[in-house]
Amino acid sequence: MKPYAQLTPAERAAEYARLQAEFESLKSKKLSLNMARGKPSKAQLALAGDIFSLMRSPEDYVSDGIDVRNYGELSGLPAARRLFADLLGCRPEQVFVGGNSSLQLMYDTVSKAYTHGLLHSPRPWCKEETVKWLCPTPGYDRHFKVTETFGFQLIAIPMTEQGPDMDAVEEAVKDPAVKGIWCVPKYSNPDGIIYSDETIRRMAALSPAAPDFTILWDNAYCVHEFEGDFVPFPDMLALCAQAGRPDMVFEFCSTSKMTLPGAGIACFACSEANLAHMEKLLTIQTIGYDKVNQQRHVLFLRDKAHILELMKKHAAIMAPKFRCVVDTLDREVAPLEIASWQRPKGGYFVSLSAMPGTAKRTLALCKEAGVSMTGAGAAFPYGKDPQDTNIRIAPSLPPVEELEEAMAVLCVCLKMAALEKLGL
Amino acid sequence: MKPYAQLTPAERAAEYARLQAEFESLKSKKLSLNMARGKPSKAQLALAGDIFSLMRSPEDYVSDGIDVRNYGELSGLPAARRLFADLLGCRPEQVFVGGNSSLQLMYDTVSKAYTHGLLHSPRPWCKEETVKWLCPTPGYDRHFKVTETFGFQLIAIPMTEQGPDMDAVEEAVKDPAVKGIWCVPKYSNPDGIIYSDETIRRMAALSPAAPDFTILWDNAYCVHEFEGDFVPFPDMLALCAQAGRPDMVFEFCSTSKMTLPGAGIACFACSEANLAHMEKLLTIQTIGYDKVNQQRHVLFLRDKAHILELMKKHAAIMAPKFRCVVDTLDREVAPLEIASWQRPKGGYFVSLSAMPGTAKRTLALCKEAGVSMTGAGAAFPYGKDPQDTNIRIAPSLPPVEELEEAMAVLCVCLKMAALEKLGL
Repeated sequence: MKPYAQLTPAERAAEYARLQAEFESLKSKKLSLNMARGKPSKAQLALAGDIFSLMRSPEDYVSDGIDVRNYGELSGLPAARRLFADLLGCRPEQVFVGGNSSLQLMYDTVSKAYTHGLLHSPRPWCKEETVKWLCPTPGYDRHFKVTETFGFQLIAIPMTEQGPDMDAVEEAVKDPAVKGIWCVPKYSNPDGIIYSDETIRRMAALSPAAPDFTILWDNAYCVHEFEGDFVPFPDMLALCAQAGRPDMVFEFCSTSKMTLPGAGIACFACSEANLAHMEKLLTIQTIGYDKVNQQRHVLFLRDKAHILELMKKHAAIMAPKFRCVVDTLDREVAPLEIASWQRPKGGYFVSLSAMPGTAKRTLALCKEAGVSMTGAGAAFPYGKDPQDTNIRIAPSLPPVEELEEAMAVLCVCLKMAALEKLGL
Repeated sequence: MKPYAQLTPAERAAEYARLQAEFESLKSKKLSLNMARGKPSKAQLALAGDIFSLMRSPEDYVSDGIDVRNYGELSGLPAARRLFADLLGCRPEQVFVGGNSSLQLMYDTVSKAYTHGLLHSPRPWCKEETVKWLCPTPGYDRHFKVTETFGFQLIAIPMTEQGPDMDAVEEAVKDPAVKGIWCVPKYSNPDGIIYSDETIRRMAALSPAAPDFTILWDNAYCVHEFEGDFVPFPDMLALCAQAGRPDMVFEFCSTSKMTLPGAGIACFACSEANLAHMEKLLTIQTIGYDKVNQQRHVLFLRDKAHILELMKKHAAIMAPKFRCVVDTLDREVAPLEIASWQRPKGGYFVSLSAMPGTAKRTLALCKEAGVSMTGAGAAFPYGKDPQDTNIRIAPSLPPVEELEEAMAVLCVCLKMAALEKLGL
């Protein structure tokens, strides 16, 4: 098949008729397939099976002399702080271990900035006329919604192959109303891009007008390679400190995609001055997070080396799914020149750029044929993709057989939407 | 010994000298005893031992068809919602099951009122000129601190033997700036009082000027009798609904003092309209709480009847400790007429009224002799006890032998402080 743009109107009409028949045949299968969320599969959940039978003997209840079963230790078990420090390359004193959700720690950080202010805030953000927030785009819809719900003005920053467009970021932070930026620096959601050394260096060297400008550095996929070896990644806390602004970054991480999604442990890491400030606020909110689950994770995950072994097992499950997505697109869609896509080596998504103006239509067709995808526009501030082009594919949940069916549907829908756009 | 007030100055001096010698002898023991917090003892923690070995087989991972190991179910496992509904006498649809901390759910409720507003709020509370909050006093220091940290003006409401002074409450809620009240309705912290039917009825029938006035009903000790049988308690949600204001109350509860402190599960319960409003805000904050731990608790606790059996075992450990406290005070302090105290049948505290102006001094002496107690004034708004009289005794943590030593210290310190106050 030639590129669609080169087809005559008659050829397009014939192709569309053929696709319609294929679409009807797929619809008649009454599929119910889900590629909407970065949800691990049953096979991945099984990798954590042993976590349920840990803590058998009384000595397992004690960690560094602390009875993990009783109240206390606001900042988390020292052993859990060491575990995350090992993983992130920072120091245990910089780590606060929380509950089951890193998103919640991010929300709470933004919420406390809003209600009380961060360490260098002249006043709580709720007392500011306007708060603006930088959103590298496409990005993670849940991030954007957190800053949207507090009424911040979201500013889209284009993503490049190297990470956020740093010229745009450096320009934007001259505005004192700009208080921060969302970043997923390794295997960015949804593009799967690893920020380049140059991007990271420039990010750490930012000189923002706002004294409390904060980088929310969501290192969600820090060890989540599914192809190739572990890619080492710099410690952003140290880089910001070296650049003279140790308090400019909060880093986040969780074990949700190492052990159990929604039943793992999460942390934030920041300068010790930031941590002292946050602890003063957090001690009002809670006596402490679930240390029993922290202890389970310390016993199960042990250290970074052991985690990397575990992640190889996740990779063995994930890799064939990503290959299925990319191979299908290469075979079915590439020759038509109606879309382009990333080829990530880690993370949870494949980000696809459909022909402008066709993403919504494609996903509506998918839905009609029983395939759920992340809503069109979700990866953009306020859920609005100005080009209507971005489609996020999340292939982790379905088994490969189902994924093949879902991709067949997606390809037909992409083609139909493109032909409709080109005109029949 | 006669009441201290009836002693001659010479008798007082002799008594004080005798006590000083006793104090020095106690000090020389270099004690390190803790009656500061309502922390369960090791023996109580052991009662939850079986919770670690649940979830052995694949069917244990599934609850109402939901794989508890994966993301989802923002409001909690249906089975966990049913469990708390059974316990509180409300309906499962009214229950939101969260993480390990009911305090955190309370903080988050107040925080969301501040940042976004509650269901009937004309505006977020951060946009209000003044927010006032009613604090039945003496009360729980962590409650008061939550409302203090958001800059609310705390208004002390006297506690009576029947619960908060409802005349004072009814008068206070005429002020539209008064947005809510803290309540620990069963075995109040620290007095151990069960609100009377009359108090509860009047509370539910409040007609506040603020449309978003909210009762934060912390049912922390709903099944926490240590003496006598379980005391049934009305469903406050139903009472408020009957009185025409179904959205006026949020109830809280946790298993921290049933299973594991800081590693249990917590919930809030409210009208379905309130819950729908809160879910819209909570879905931005988190994908969901730890359902694996919810499932562990469902399997371990089963239902209210089974929980009441478990609480009998807690009672068997707690009762001798409370008897030790009250018996020691009866024997050592009662004849001197320098203090009075409650005789609770449940909860975690004994509240003692020392001679006015002696609480701080008593606790300073205790500290000198190695006994940690809750800070003087903690049970009052802003940590300031205007009479300097209230002392909260938390006898749950130490074994009885240690408790006897700690009570010996407390009695000597109470007596010394009283004599100093009366004049030597």
